[in-house]
Amino acid sequence: MHPELSFQEKKTSAFIYQTLLSFENLEVTRPTEYSVMARLIGESPGKVLAMRADIDALPIMEENDFDFVSQSPGVMHACGHDGHTAMMLGAAKILSENKDDIKGEIRFLFQHAEEQFPGGAKEMVEAGVLDGVDYIIGLHLFSTIPKGEIGVIYGPLTANDDTFELKIIGKGGHASAPDTSIDPIAIASQFVSNLQHIVSRKLDPLERLVISVTEFHAGNAVNIIPESATLSGSVRSFSQDVRGSAVQLIEQIAKGVTSAHGASYQFNYDYGYSSVVNNDLLTKKVEDAVSEIFGDKCIRYGPPMMGGEDFSAFLKKIPGCFIPVGARNETKGIVHPHHHPKFTIDEDALNDGVKILINASLKILD
Amino acid sequence: MHPELSFQEKKTSAFIYQTLLSFENLEVTRPTEYSVMARLIGESPGKVLAMRADIDALPIMEENDFDFVSQSPGVMHACGHDGHTAMMLGAAKILSENKDDIKGEIRFLFQHAEEQFPGGAKEMVEAGVLDGVDYIIGLHLFSTIPKGEIGVIYGPLTANDDTFELKIIGKGGHASAPDTSIDPIAIASQFVSNLQHIVSRKLDPLERLVISVTEFHAGNAVNIIPESATLSGSVRSFSQDVRGSAVQLIEQIAKGVTSAHGASYQFNYDYGYSSVVNNDLLTKKVEDAVSEIFGDKCIRYGPPMMGGEDFSAFLKKIPGCFIPVGARNETKGIVHPHHHPKFTIDEDALNDGVKILINASLKILD
Amino acid sequence: MHPELSFQEKKTSAFIYQTLLSFENLEVTRPTEYSVMARLIGESPGKVLAMRADIDALPIMEENDFDFVSQSPGVMHACGHDGHTAMMLGAAKILSENKDDIKGEIRFLFQHAEEQFPGGAKEMVEAGVLDGVDYIIGLHLFSTIPKGEIGVIYGPLTANDDTFELKIIGKGGHASAPDTSIDPIAIASQFVSNLQHIVSRKLDPLERLVISVTEFHAGNAVNIIPESATLSGSVRSFSQDVRGSAVQLIEQIAKGVTSAHGASYQFNYDYGYSSVVNNDLLTKKVEDAVSEIFGDKCIRYGPPMMGGEDFSAFLKKIPGCFIPVGARNETKGIVHPHHHPKFTIDEDALNDGVKILINASLKILD
Amino acid sequence: MHPELSFQEKKTSAFIYQTLLSFENLEVTRPTEYSVMARLIGESPGKVLAMRADIDALPIMEENDFDFVSQSPGVMHACGHDGHTAMMLGAAKILSENKDDIKGEIRFLFQHAEEQFPGGAKEMVEAGVLDGVDYIIGLHLFSTIPKGEIGVIYGPLTANDDTFELKIIGKGGHASAPDTSIDPIAIASQFVSNLQHIVSRKLDPLERLVISVTEFHAGNAVNIIPESATLSGSVRSFSQDVRGSAVQLIEQIAKGVTSAHGASYQFNYDYGYSSVVNNDLLTKKVEDAVSEIFGDKCIRYGPPMMGGEDFSAFLKKIPGCFIPVGARNETKGIVHPHHHPKFTIDEDALNDGVKILINASLKILD
Repeated sequence: MHPELSFQEKKTSAFIYQTLLSFENLEVTRPTEYSVMARLIGESPGKVLAMRADIDALPIMEENDFDFVSQSPGVMHACGHDGHTAMMLGAAKILSENKDDIKGEIRFLFQHAEEQFPGGAKEMVEAGVLDGVDYIIGLHLFSTIPKGEIGVIYGPLTANDDTFELKIIGKGGHASAPDTSIDPIAIASQFVSNLQHIVSRKLDPLERLVISVTEFHAGNAVNIIPESATLSGSVRSFSQDVRGSAVQLIEQIAKGVTSAHGASYQFNYDYGYSSVVNNDLLTKKVEDAVSEIFGDKCIRYGPPMMGGEDFSAFLKKIPGCFIPVGARNETKGIVHPHHHPKFTIDEDALNDGVKILINASLKILD
Repeated sequence: MHPELSFQEKKTSAFIYQTLLSFENLEVTRPTEYSVMARLIGESPGKVLAMRADIDALPIMEENDFDFVSQSPGVMHACGHDGHTAMMLGAAKILSENKDDIKGEIRFLFQHAEEQFPGGAKEMVEAGVLDGVDYIIGLHLFSTIPKGEIGVIYGPLTANDDTFELKIIGKGGHASAPDTSIDPIAIASQFVSNLQHIVSRKLDPLERLVISVTEFHAGNAVNIIPESATLSGSVRSFSQDVRGSAVQLIEQIAKGVTSAHGASYQFNYDYGYSSVVNNDLLTKKVEDAVSEIFGDKCIRYGPPMMGGEDFSAFLKKIPGCFIPVGARNETKGIVHPHHHPKFTIDEDALNDGVKILINASLKILD
Repeated sequence: MHPELSFQEKKTSAFIYQTLLSFENLEVTRPTEYSVMARLIGESPGKVLAMRADIDALPIMEENDFDFVSQSPGVMHACGHDGHTAMMLGAAKILSENKDDIKGEIRFLFQHAEEQFPGGAKEMVEAGVLDGVDYIIGLHLFSTIPKGEIGVIYGPLTANDDTFELKIIGKGGHASAPDTSIDPIAIASQFVSNLQHIVSRKLDPLERLVISVTEFHAGNAVNIIPESATLSGSVRSFSQDVRGSAVQLIEQIAKGVTSAHGASYQFNYDYGYSSVVNNDLLTKKVEDAVSEIFGDKCIRYGPPMMGGEDFSAFLKKIPGCFIPVGARNETKGIVHPHHHPKFTIDEDALNDGVKILINASLKILD
Repeated sequence: MHPELSFQEKKTSAFIYQTLLSFENLEVTRPTEYSVMARLIGESPGKVLAMRADIDALPIMEENDFDFVSQSPGVMHACGHDGHTAMMLGAAKILSENKDDIKGEIRFLFQHAEEQFPGGAKEMVEAGVLDGVDYIIGLHLFSTIPKGEIGVIYGPLTANDDTFELKIIGKGGHASAPDTSIDPIAIASQFVSNLQHIVSRKLDPLERLVISVTEFHAGNAVNIIPESATLSGSVRSFSQDVRGSAVQLIEQIAKGVTSAHGASYQFNYDYGYSSVVNNDLLTKKVEDAVSEIFGDKCIRYGPPMMGGEDFSAFLKKIPGCFIPVGARNETKGIVHPHHHPKFTIDEDALNDGVKILINASLKILD
């Protein structure tokens, strides 16, 4: 009922902090202004496993009419992060009460600002929350998976989510004298045309990549050839090789096409969230843990999604596994997609999540 | 000193009207709100010759410092139309005083609004000023020709000056899912590329045509493929065949390229001033008349200019000849181009113009 | 030692036929000129399972120097089909000797002409070999998988392997007068450029498609714009939806681009082998059967290959599973790829194949 | 009746040599194997004027049926060079008989090999035939001008007639794996598309240029991306500036486009005949001389032709004027274009040519 936007999770993080303090056996700290961490040191020595829940909400006006609807107009938990928080609090309570069964350490990371680049995960990593940690797991409630089913994905699950800006600089002039100008619109159009070759000719057909030029602006008078054209675009990929190759090829094409026509360019590539790529060995353990509880409702989920998720900031440091948990329920009318004003979850899924977190942790640490 | 903008030539036309009334033998009328016509009926019957001077000014802040500088801030005779007016008033005075020498009729057309499409010429033609007229001549002072030289051009002298707008309509969508959208930027870029073929492949290489896409606007969010792209462009040609063919081919390419990619389009072509094309026979007479006075200072001027001029509205009805009169004077520092804040003319050129108008009229009517 | 080319497997099929006749309990027939079928009717009623081995060789000059090297110069078993034949003969012998254990029927299909479109599989299906059959399985020895490992693939394994021809018809003329011709080279070049959009803009980024224009021929005199340009290309895909969409889009782009420039076209699309897509349920049974024998040497193989295989002709009728069997052996120097003049297999793999065929059949029929 | 091909004018040149020797007052020499020169030194000192006639024939099978039809099958005077030779022999005879009237010198150049690049004119210039010469004139019979009319052209009359070859070198590979190859067909197509910008965007719209890619060859197997694509093209221009700029821009675009895609290129530009550009002052004298005889049948001819003519090799050294002489006669059925198997001339035009050569020479030398 009290959602807060990314980098503004003041009350949310305070509530989590107080709740964790009320549990036994936890060392609770605030790694950054809006995040919370709790460490549960097991009885016997062993590996260190982190689990992460994101806690922030979205700038969307909720259109649901439950009694627990958002009390903050224009802010809404439209991606289920309140559910993620609740599940991990539940897991923390139960696990902390069973400290004796734990070999090694479990570290609970309540992360702010997943929804806004550069993301809270990066900030927490920089604050050292992964120091000494061996593995990390995380859950996400999925509106596309029926309640009761749990997804398992080996390899990539979300995309590298980048953008670029390209300014093609020609030379302005009168529309009737193209020879005295360098026409940036004609040249930028050739850039867009040549750019298509990266996906169609330069990409391993078994790999995945999307490059979309989404903005093209040039000129403001019908009789004047403008001096420059400004383009921007979105680039999605899964592997870091494909991502690196795309950056290099986009600029190579910009350079080649502009030099073909005597123009110049300015190119800026903005790296967004990296792709979440699950570690095979850890995922096998998670799959086993999930299968124990859910049997054949433990499904291989795929293909990966083109969207971004900053869980990847943790995976840059250590192996991990991100787990889709079914939260859709057609019979209850719970069918709206994430980021929709009527988004909600089947709350029965929360129990599933708690079970997964507990069972997977114990299995991994064993 | 009192320049007035196109379609606002209230005082200017009133002054001309009063001045003409003060001359002998003229029937002076107001064909339209801002124009003036004077008819001089010769003693003996014959052909009817019109001559035209344009009278309007431009929205430019004059930067000259003569004592006769513009008294209307932001408005300036930066194209010499005040000179054209003065010359034709001079010719009218002298010719009207020599009515006996005139065979047929001379009609003096003081035209408003040359600088602003759709132009005053069209309005005057619609008001009937050419009824019964056989030929028309006109002068233009030229900053590119030295004072004392007079240009003669057979055939085209200014361009058809048109514009177009093209909206390419695809289907908006998320940047990561191009297959669920129809990308108008990629398609419009292909349009621009294919469009180059009109000039490079479809035009008689001995003809002249310029097609410049000068505005290209699409998209306002880096993650969203926009629904449409809006282009505009300028089209210059000399012959009416080439012009007609260009209109048809631009749309044919828009249609073909959009249909190749499942998009649609809206196309609008705006016909501006037509090209001024001098009549060969009449130009020969003018050349003879000019040569009599100016000898080898009567030059073949060329090539034609890519700019527009609404004298063409008269030429749609009757044969005519438009005559460039040198008004540059390097030694006096009179070197600035038309439409420049420091534009002026060598006033000695006014005598040249009066002589041409008188001698050419007598020659043509003879 | 006696390889025969596709549609010429006279001695090979005769040998197989005679061998099968020497086994017990089989009904042996010749469904087509070069193929052989053997039916083994089990003791108890049940499902009918077919298994297939291909038997043809390739037009390659063998460069190996074993004592069993090809005795037919220029013809070679460079794809391991002799191994496939041997394994299925072995499986037929053992299974036929254990008729009592078999529930239902096993049908052994020795197929000719896998290497040459339109393929022998299609011919056999038309001859009715699948009448009454419920499932089909097949093996392929893989030079990319180490001996001892067996691959399992859910879903697509080989590609739809099609080609097209496009003739773009303009109008010939002299190089100096492009306006009197319709330039097929310029137009075909725009076709190639626009064609890239299918993969880069029209394809679900999680799907797979390759369109390569591999031949472009036009013109035979430097001063003459030719009348037409002839292109051909290769199209690979996995899903039938993507395949169908590609055909439609290639022609749509040909039509749009040629109409943009006043040209016409002739388009011909040649459907080659369809993709082999394993059935999930059957593959699960195969995976279980293989795991029983090979443990964790039963691997998930992927990604799919862009090549073609006519096992798909059987899959058009009934569900099936195609199984990659490891035949590489680095320590024995058995490393050359399929279709290489030094290709061979680790013969120990033959035992693996026989075991798989037997165990999988029994499991499926059970 | 005895036409000879370029660089094979053995009998033709021998006949001309013998004929010239039979005239008075001439110094007759053989500057090169197939050309003939005659010098006529006037009585009084003065300028030196050369006049040129070309003497070679074409590899065309004549389809006329006069009694003077070609006796050499497959070789024909289909461009009127026999007429040029006859006229200049006539002029030489008459002028040599009137040596006293001549001030300075007239040099008669009977040139071989106009029809075949690199042309006989270049060879003669290298042999020194222009040493000491001030001006040169030449005639050409025109099938597009009615007999009795003579054309005068100021400035360019024929085009620079060049060709180029471009090899775009990518990397061959399998059609299904474009990422492991560099696709020369896709890249060459982008080259052709970008190339259009030279004429549409880089050329002064008042200038003239044609660039036609006339040959495009790549690939010979539908499953293989070829290693390279080979293009050739024709380039026509009039000014040397435009020509030089075209060469530079074609290569700049080849370089830019190939570098955009990681390919390389080989570029070869073959300069053919340069444009024939008449000298203004000399043309004025010719116009006066022609007008004296032909009155208003002396016409301004235009626009220039896109074809080539090696008279330009002389004009690289000295000012000159090339003169079109009307030879068409519709009433006599003499209407076929140059290089047509039924080409012929109205023989009455020969008298016109002789008169022009004589009168123009006397006028120029005076």
